Amino acid sequence: MSSYSPTPRTTLHRRPVRGTYDRATVHSILDEALVCQLGFVFEGQPYVLPTMFVRHEERVLVHGAAAGRFMRTLAAGAEACVSVTLLDALVLARSAFHHSMNYRSVVVLGRAHEVTDRAEKLRAMALLVDKVSPGRSALAREPNDKEIRATAILSIPLEEVSAKIRVGPPVDDEEDMTFPVWAGLVPISLRAAPPQWDGLGDGSQPLPVMPRAVGSPRGL
Amino acid sequence: MSSYSPTPRTTLHRRPVRGTYDRATVHSILDEALVCQLGFVFEGQPYVLPTMFVRHEERVLVHGAAAGRFMRTLAAGAEACVSVTLLDALVLARSAFHHSMNYRSVVVLGRAHEVTDRAEKLRAMALLVDKVSPGRSALAREPNDKEIRATAILSIPLEEVSAKIRVGPPVDDEEDMTFPVWAGLVPISLRAAPPQWDGLGDGSQPLPVMPRAVGSPRGL
Repeated sequence: MSSYSPTPRTTLHRRPVRGTYDRATVHSILDEALVCQLGFVFEGQPYVLPTMFVRHEERVLVHGAAAGRFMRTLAAGAEACVSVTLLDALVLARSAFHHSMNYRSVVVLGRAHEVTDRAEKLRAMALLVDKVSPGRSALAREPNDKEIRATAILSIPLEEVSAKIRVGPPVDDEEDMTFPVWAGLVPISLRAAPPQWDGLGDGSQPLPVMPRAVGSPRGL
Repeated sequence: MSSYSPTPRTTLHRRPVRGTYDRATVHSILDEALVCQLGFVFEGQPYVLPTMFVRHEERVLVHGAAAGRFMRTLAAGAEACVSVTLLDALVLARSAFHHSMNYRSVVVLGRAHEVTDRAEKLRAMALLVDKVSPGRSALAREPNDKEIRATAILSIPLEEVSAKIRVGPPVDDEEDMTFPVWAGLVPISLRAAPPQWDGLGDGSQPLPVMPRAVGSPRGL
């Protein structure tokens, strides 16, 4: 199926015109974003923590310290929420009220389970490294037994999923069109500066491949 | 006081060396970030939604549609979590395990209350516009009564607050130093492309002032 099925929990109430359940769109947003914000409840308090992640097929994979209390809470099957946001432009309208941003966001609701199979875990660890620099897992020193044990990998299924996207120029009210202030978009995007070698080892190897996250500005 | 007091809920368990409760550091991270991720629980499910925000003195202010169910839930005093993350560099180590990112993040725990005083609400709306482009609230057409009514402003106190920061090059194990792969940092940062006028009105007014969010790359 080319779209996720909306559920009562993923049906957008505010500005539903910005919503989409298109699978390719959701994948594209998840694949570009370097970090997600992982939400869960611990002792009655909602927590939201930033963490690296990667999408693999119809799952979001995150990693963390195996001994962490939050990882243990999530691995035990607590309800979770994964939120990912890419910013594309500042939207500067003539009226204060219509100021906005162009963005692409995804929200995933679901329960995590821990990946314990060694081969699956190694694959997830490789995918996480490749997210940051494509192809790099084949170049870096691979995880040893101690490192594999110290790492917990959680898998959250892409089942209850929605995306929300704003594109286009500011939308001002007709009567504001002559208001004397500049209006339009300022495209913003994550960009990379030249790599900085750490000065150790011999430093003669090829520079890292850049991830999609630091591509061209979109604005839209 | 120059620092927030750690509580059991904001005491870092993982990598406490990266943590700080320094007030100026927390303010600086909050003031640079364009969006926060707002976490709360609705009908037992944690939700995390991206939203614009601004820090004003010792409060985080967010806005939303007054009629929204999530805004109503939060305004009713539900426990909330505000998470803000700035990415500064990809950290490419020799070992897969030591790959990381340089980042600056803040997590705020607390209950929101709704700002209902008209003057306070107008000030919050102006601060939100100025966050996106400094000084712009004085230039844009100010909110009218209908727009003020349609907007809910929530205020979350900066009381239970922690920041977490990673800086510096990759930290590889001694025995990996001769492993033949490039290692170091790739600085990343949010940057702006030239403003794009929307082609309406006369377009002769000065271009917008850029926010701190799109400043120089840090890397660190």
